[in-house]
Amino acid sequence: MIERWGVFEARFPGSEAAAVEARFTHGDRAVRVPGFYDGDGTHVVRFSPDAEGEWSYSTTSGDAELDGRTGTFEVGPPSPRNHGPVGVAGTFHFAYADGTPYRPVGTTVYNWAHQPEDHYRETLESVAAAGFTKLRFLVFPQGGNHVGHVPDAFPFARDGDRWDVSRIDAAFFRRIDRAVRDLLDVGVQADVILFHPYDGGRFGLDGLTAEQDEVYLRHLVARLSAYRNVWWSLANEYDILDRPDERWDGVFRTLRDADPHTRLRSIHNWIRLYDHNKPWVTHVSLQNGSAVADFGRALLYRDTYRRPIVLDEIKYEGDTAERWGNLSARELVHRFWIATVSGTYASHGESYLVDGGTLSIVAGGRFRGESPPRLAFLRRILEEVDGAGLDPIDKWDDPTNTAGIPRQVYLQYLGLDAPPTWTFRLPQGVVGERLQVGDRFAVDVIDTWNTTVEPVGREFTLTSVERNDAWADGEPVALPAGEALALRIRRIDG
Amino acid sequence: MIERWGVFEARFPGSEAAAVEARFTHGDRAVRVPGFYDGDGTHVVRFSPDAEGEWSYSTTSGDAELDGRTGTFEVGPPSPRNHGPVGVAGTFHFAYADGTPYRPVGTTVYNWAHQPEDHYRETLESVAAAGFTKLRFLVFPQGGNHVGHVPDAFPFARDGDRWDVSRIDAAFFRRIDRAVRDLLDVGVQADVILFHPYDGGRFGLDGLTAEQDEVYLRHLVARLSAYRNVWWSLANEYDILDRPDERWDGVFRTLRDADPHTRLRSIHNWIRLYDHNKPWVTHVSLQNGSAVADFGRALLYRDTYRRPIVLDEIKYEGDTAERWGNLSARELVHRFWIATVSGTYASHGESYLVDGGTLSIVAGGRFRGESPPRLAFLRRILEEVDGAGLDPIDKWDDPTNTAGIPRQVYLQYLGLDAPPTWTFRLPQGVVGERLQVGDRFAVDVIDTWNTTVEPVGREFTLTSVERNDAWADGEPVALPAGEALALRIRRIDG
Repeated sequence: MIERWGVFEARFPGSEAAAVEARFTHGDRAVRVPGFYDGDGTHVVRFSPDAEGEWSYSTTSGDAELDGRTGTFEVGPPSPRNHGPVGVAGTFHFAYADGTPYRPVGTTVYNWAHQPEDHYRETLESVAAAGFTKLRFLVFPQGGNHVGHVPDAFPFARDGDRWDVSRIDAAFFRRIDRAVRDLLDVGVQADVILFHPYDGGRFGLDGLTAEQDEVYLRHLVARLSAYRNVWWSLANEYDILDRPDERWDGVFRTLRDADPHTRLRSIHNWIRLYDHNKPWVTHVSLQNGSAVADFGRALLYRDTYRRPIVLDEIKYEGDTAERWGNLSARELVHRFWIATVSGTYASHGESYLVDGGTLSIVAGGRFRGESPPRLAFLRRILEEVDGAGLDPIDKWDDPTNTAGIPRQVYLQYLGLDAPPTWTFRLPQGVVGERLQVGDRFAVDVIDTWNTTVEPVGREFTLTSVERNDAWADGEPVALPAGEALALRIRRIDG
Repeated sequence: MIERWGVFEARFPGSEAAAVEARFTHGDRAVRVPGFYDGDGTHVVRFSPDAEGEWSYSTTSGDAELDGRTGTFEVGPPSPRNHGPVGVAGTFHFAYADGTPYRPVGTTVYNWAHQPEDHYRETLESVAAAGFTKLRFLVFPQGGNHVGHVPDAFPFARDGDRWDVSRIDAAFFRRIDRAVRDLLDVGVQADVILFHPYDGGRFGLDGLTAEQDEVYLRHLVARLSAYRNVWWSLANEYDILDRPDERWDGVFRTLRDADPHTRLRSIHNWIRLYDHNKPWVTHVSLQNGSAVADFGRALLYRDTYRRPIVLDEIKYEGDTAERWGNLSARELVHRFWIATVSGTYASHGESYLVDGGTLSIVAGGRFRGESPPRLAFLRRILEEVDGAGLDPIDKWDDPTNTAGIPRQVYLQYLGLDAPPTWTFRLPQGVVGERLQVGDRFAVDVIDTWNTTVEPVGREFTLTSVERNDAWADGEPVALPAGEALALRIRRIDG
């Protein structure tokens, strides 16, 4: 029996030149699912059923051998760790299909899928052990800068100097399948990057035509979209590639129209931002370290896009000469917390120089940095929030840097300030439930670097609720020495 | 003779219920211009010719009296102070039609057009004398908060409890005409606000239907668009009005389609931002004081919208209890300079409580604040920039807060820092001309509050150009005491 949001797969013999599509039905519903050629004279249809009960399918194809194949199968409940695919929730946040909130605390290993086996496996284990909930990686192998390793498989057959995208290399794509499945097994979202500009003149995979793009995209969608942990990232630093915006619009449209599972769609920039207000963008994937280098910045992106904001490149913890790759772990963790109280999400990456001059962000391996355990701690704090997610309460005028769910739970991050005491103060904001005199709260002091949560051993009762702020009774709270502290303020009488 | 970008006006007798349109031709070009009813049995067609030479026109109307009227007129060169209408230039900036840069240093007097005559005139003189280059004001009178004065004219005739938008009050609209013309005479752009939510239940002009909107808009466009200083601001704080975005889209479309002069179009927010990436938005008009309360914020809007960013409400200099209305003059001027080095523009307003409890930002009058002469000084600095405008050079990673035109001219603003000396350092950025070792520069020290420009009496020659920064020879420059200093760095060998 297939579990809900699991993968049903049917394999059919057929010639490489043929194409097949299947129609899956469940009661009155029908879903058309494209198949793909998987080499060895075999076509495959993969489908992820989103409802329990009996499903049937029948195929259509111009090839008699592949046409009219039918079957039925039973779908049962999801297994305990299967919450379904991730979608957008509460405008700025994410949740699994069963309603469980999903908190992106991701990392990046671009060339992961193309590494030698032991290195591939070491990275997977490191990402899982560190507790990251998303991994960004490239489908096409990286060439040039910082890349020593040459992969042993390429996506397409060669036709003289050019790639023949009509003849895929099944061994290459099965490796991508496996990467997605391996991440699924350890509970990590696969942020699959479809195109990238890091070819360095090596493989020519940055030189496909728009028509070739489409063949590749349709193959990849048919192959991968049934895995519930797939997110589509159209490109890393899309604007380094010499392609007009209209071509990227076309890629988005192809994905939207070809993907029966409607997985999340985003595109990541170098210096020019794509128009993330376009209707096919599900969430905003950004490079801009400056946006979380201080308060009051990243939240502006929420206003302009009204979608989840994922800062997928905020510079990296590392020791490279380039300024994008030499943040201290403390600075990186600090930026994650600024992202948090800005109502946005950030991604991690390590750019320590490793064996042979490559970078961990390219090749992976064991994490050497000091940020991962602090980010796992942040993940835990985020997962303890019961609701869609944390939104800035008084977005343009809040000296306390507070995000939360009005009248329920709040996080305040003190950043580089290291005051000896903290005085209870909450912004009122203009959206959601209003604070009232008499509301009672519990407060935890969080040390974001030392990963401690210390409850303040008394309650706080609101004694004054003004136009913009609310204040509680009692003495100021003594804080531990040092910076990077946060307060968690939870209502206890609600 | 009409001057280029001046106003040609033809008046025709006709009944109120009729409508007239004129077709203006110049060589092979033809422009269709709607007329409007101006009361007293008179229809008017206003047109601003954008080319010299002979123009002819002929009218069409369902009414025989108005149909087939023809004429010709000669258009000569513009007078010296007439540079044509303002349009977008260099993606993020503005220029007059003759190529002269236009620098927005605007102010706001919402209810100006509806004040008693002496007060109206005092405001006009104050705005002109202060050197502001744009004035935001409302077409519909304001009611409620801070408004004591009841206007003596309303835009439409009453039909019982409702407004009959098909019967305009010509006296009301002639007052708006005059306001636009008076501003034109003193060289100030008229940022005409078409709708607003400040009715306070008084006049009901916030309760028009979409159909009524359209009648009003078409009248206003026919009446005002020929004045070359008109900008259309669809609303102030549009999101306080209970109207779906689609209705605002419709207003934009009506303006775009009905305005033969294609004047600038924007919309101003309260807390929810309109999607300024929509194709009919010519520039971004924003409320967000926080965006210029510190560095690194406002420039994010440039990335998301790729249009000129005008921060039309950054809080006001004043003494009101509400936090939007009690900035010090120093803080307001500081914010303008942050806007400047962020590659954006800001607007001024005064919210001192004046006679009878109203605010200067509502009713106008003589400026009481200390910011206007400092903003006139900023205007002068901006007007001395020869080029489209100042863009952040290294937008997300520049500790020097530098905007400029690469390898030509730069402004660095030191903000609240008050260092004793300044060391020459320029960011390289990734766009435009590259700095080279040997490039020579002159430097001025600018005191933004005391409005002084002091040349540093020596040249600076680049001795080192690194990946991200360029450095010059010589000792650090001694700075005057105090904060809010800026450096102007001009290449002198180019």
